[in-house]
Amino acid sequence: MKPFVLVTGNLGKIAEARLALGGGVETELADLPEIQSLDYMEVLRAKAAEAWRQLGRPLIVEEAGLDLAALNGFPGPLVKWMLEAVGAEGLARTAAALGDVRATSRCFLLYKDGDQELIAEGRTEGTLILPRRGTHGFGWDPVFLPDGTTHTFAELTGPGKGAVSHRGKAWREMLGLLEAA
Amino acid sequence: MKPFVLVTGNLGKIAEARLALGGGVETELADLPEIQSLDYMEVLRAKAAEAWRQLGRPLIVEEAGLDLAALNGFPGPLVKWMLEAVGAEGLARTAAALGDVRATSRCFLLYKDGDQELIAEGRTEGTLILPRRGTHGFGWDPVFLPDGTTHTFAELTGPGKGAVSHRGKAWREMLGLLEAA
Repeated sequence: MKPFVLVTGNLGKIAEARLALGGGVETELADLPEIQSLDYMEVLRAKAAEAWRQLGRPLIVEEAGLDLAALNGFPGPLVKWMLEAVGAEGLARTAAALGDVRATSRCFLLYKDGDQELIAEGRTEGTLILPRRGTHGFGWDPVFLPDGTTHTFAELTGPGKGAVSHRGKAWREMLGLLEAA
Repeated sequence: MKPFVLVTGNLGKIAEARLALGGGVETELADLPEIQSLDYMEVLRAKAAEAWRQLGRPLIVEEAGLDLAALNGFPGPLVKWMLEAVGAEGLARTAAALGDVRATSRCFLLYKDGDQELIAEGRTEGTLILPRRGTHGFGWDPVFLPDGTTHTFAELTGPGKGAVSHRGKAWREMLGLLEAA
């Protein structure tokens, strides 16, 4: 498989990548500046370009987000800031107040080696629930109930979450791409 | 008064600057990339640095936003994207659904000449109303009712809006700073 360094500022994302890849992952802790956009790929490509400028070797960057049906997809890749302002419960409360608790967890991975790019996406449909449940994970995990399950992301331990999560799906696709490339 | 070029991608902002300054303003139409943050000054400084890299002469950039009390200040400087997703009515509907329609319109201006900076801020408290009223202005103007008034921003013509608006207040402060500098 092609080697790479995973560049992220989020330890939770590193832990989930390790689980998905079944072992060691070389990582570089860096909180890359992100541009404002509702377009995941636009945010991701700008982040990859900046990481490439800093490191200059094969790397993977990630962009995750939460699309609320009640807000026509907002906040999407900007969810980090809504979490900072109102927390996971605030996300769920907003969706409930607007009368539509459906949401989509999304994760995009981009492998970059100079001009070569590999792109993988994972998405998980679900609903936002209150009160929050579970203590694992991060972000909106405690209020996100994937469709067809009875446990929130935060009630699942790593491998269980990886099986159903947007991030687990994206990493499995990326692994296939890296092995085939 | 110190000369400057106003750098923005928003024609509405140019029109309001012209009114506030009582005449011609040199402008440069540029949609500068903005970094993700809830900190107005952080977004503004990054934008000013990029504008300075591109133009290399005295300039002013603006950052405006809407802080919703119901969302603990969110979306703030990210309001552009919430407007893109759900429109002005969506902002008002969200605040109403959450049971708190108070909001603050904010505008920051930054004059930059190399390392020299002048910073002005204007803010207007108000409430978000439905249905939308008025046809002037842009952004959240049709649903924003400034405290102590009976007209939304969009029901006011330019000079009337400038007298009470976050942007008018910021420009008046900036004019004083430019004349005193």
